Amino acid sequence: MIPQRNRRVILIQRPVGIPQASHFEIVESPIPELHSGQLLVRNEFLSVEPAMRGWLNATANYADPVAIGDTMRSFAAGTVIASKHPLYAEGDRVMGMLGWQEYAVTDGKPIRRKVLEADLPLSYSLGILGINGVTAYFALTEIGQPRPGDTVVVSTAAGAVGSAVGQLARIAGCRTVGITGGATKQQLCLEKFGFDAAVDYKSASFETDLAAATPNGVDIYHDNTAGYISDVVVRRINKRARIICCGTASVANWDDWPSGPRIERHLLNKAARMEGFLIWDYEHRYEEAVTRLAAWLRSGQLIHSEEILEGIEQAPGAIATLYRGENRGKLIVRLDHSAE
Amino acid sequence: MIPQRNRRVILIQRPVGIPQASHFEIVESPIPELHSGQLLVRNEFLSVEPAMRGWLNATANYADPVAIGDTMRSFAAGTVIASKHPLYAEGDRVMGMLGWQEYAVTDGKPIRRKVLEADLPLSYSLGILGINGVTAYFALTEIGQPRPGDTVVVSTAAGAVGSAVGQLARIAGCRTVGITGGATKQQLCLEKFGFDAAVDYKSASFETDLAAATPNGVDIYHDNTAGYISDVVVRRINKRARIICCGTASVANWDDWPSGPRIERHLLNKAARMEGFLIWDYEHRYEEAVTRLAAWLRSGQLIHSEEILEGIEQAPGAIATLYRGENRGKLIVRLDHSAE
Repeated sequence: MIPQRNRRVILIQRPVGIPQASHFEIVESPIPELHSGQLLVRNEFLSVEPAMRGWLNATANYADPVAIGDTMRSFAAGTVIASKHPLYAEGDRVMGMLGWQEYAVTDGKPIRRKVLEADLPLSYSLGILGINGVTAYFALTEIGQPRPGDTVVVSTAAGAVGSAVGQLARIAGCRTVGITGGATKQQLCLEKFGFDAAVDYKSASFETDLAAATPNGVDIYHDNTAGYISDVVVRRINKRARIICCGTASVANWDDWPSGPRIERHLLNKAARMEGFLIWDYEHRYEEAVTRLAAWLRSGQLIHSEEILEGIEQAPGAIATLYRGENRGKLIVRLDHSAE
Repeated sequence: MIPQRNRRVILIQRPVGIPQASHFEIVESPIPELHSGQLLVRNEFLSVEPAMRGWLNATANYADPVAIGDTMRSFAAGTVIASKHPLYAEGDRVMGMLGWQEYAVTDGKPIRRKVLEADLPLSYSLGILGINGVTAYFALTEIGQPRPGDTVVVSTAAGAVGSAVGQLARIAGCRTVGITGGATKQQLCLEKFGFDAAVDYKSASFETDLAAATPNGVDIYHDNTAGYISDVVVRRINKRARIICCGTASVANWDDWPSGPRIERHLLNKAARMEGFLIWDYEHRYEEAVTRLAAWLRSGQLIHSEEILEGIEQAPGAIATLYRGENRGKLIVRLDHSAE
């Protein structure tokens, strides 16, 4: 049965810095009749990711910001429940930019892919088989270019991208060192994600701990934080090191560029490379990454960790949760449609 | 006739920041008898380059610092006047790390190459056919990867490396914008080195001038300065821009890393690359660059500019001259042996 009402999370105030629950509101609206060429998706999982901060900030970024009053931009995964679109049929599992809402009427363009891994949870298409895993795969392989024996340091190592980078680097024969906050996440890095070492950036001995964990220096640094954490890592890079700028979670506001140590001389002396990574540059190679990641998941070489929040009411505060570092693994909002 | 005495410039005090004449002393010593496997070079030209600051600083760099009491490390070009070495004969023109001295007794290892371009001035082997030209060639082609239509910005554009980068970028079909200090050098960039535009970083309107000169943004930035000049350029980079860290002339002291705007977020948003360049990584490809550069010199597509200082007495103060930006083109010390 086609539902009549849709609940969605809209932006009501533009955040400066980290988006909070108060910047959003949940509104209800009717689901319009499908036109020819449209389909209706019942969203089952909504994604929460650090990049959302950038999608909300008014300043120039890699994408236009979400407008006030619009449904929050987001990846979501769900099932097609009605279709007047030639490429999609009822029952298809899909993921794409379907927004923080219970249902999405779409012309198909926002859909990234049909989720064909029927043996794996649909939610994985938002995490390890979605933007996070694909980011980890291309950032590490294309910019990092890991070689067996390299020392790879990863920040936010217990997070969705970081934990995947660490595991992929281990698969590539590297020594992996995770940086994370607190003993619990350290444990998670070592025991669940198989890092060779895990360092707590909140510890007073962070610098010496990192030095002890990287006795041969750092060949690849996958950076999800920027700021102080990166400053400590960057001083330890080897000749021809690769620094992947993938996220800037530890710096709350980039509207005015914050100050930090100048790295030009250091990059020069080390003939090192620092490069920004945008997943959008690899859209045409998405299936290549998903195929490999799914194979490693099935063989058990790769493990995915999720933290599930129940209900759309949880979505507005979820970005802040992420930036407080409270989640373990990929943060996802599950929508329960069973009562409908 | 084999000379008896050698004059050489030795380091007597370790500089902090820019090396001055007072950090050096000229001493005279006897020229020892040649052993088997050695040769004697009469230096005719001594090189002066920004990298010498790094060779003198005590802090970790890409090479061990020159020791107190040692002859100043330097490229020099000259003629073999006696040889007990199987690979070198009297009359050979050579260039290499022969030091700031009138004569060099060597086992051949410091010699970079025999200078075979008999139709071109020997001094060119220290500039456009030496470290400067080869640096420009590999930095631009390997890190910059210029494509026709790209906008290439070069700092210290009237200098030995910068002027070569600009010309090589023009040959590659790029729009070239030189940054330099003062109207005279601006003129030089436009009229002699053929830049499409030249901008004076000392001008109060530097930022708006650069914006006007790069209406389509910046695809490649060859940076010889770091600091404020770079901060202005980096804000104008395009998606997938390449920033070549080749020199840091505008920052006097790197012993404590100076502060500047953090660029992680900017590199990320632009999926841009920033990479340090060390010529030593390309030693095995030296002749490839020299061959191409010599061909462009002969065809007139490439022009080399030199400023010659007369006599070894000029060497100690020459690095400071360079950092004051007073030279036009490659700074060289000529040694006159005609009276001997």
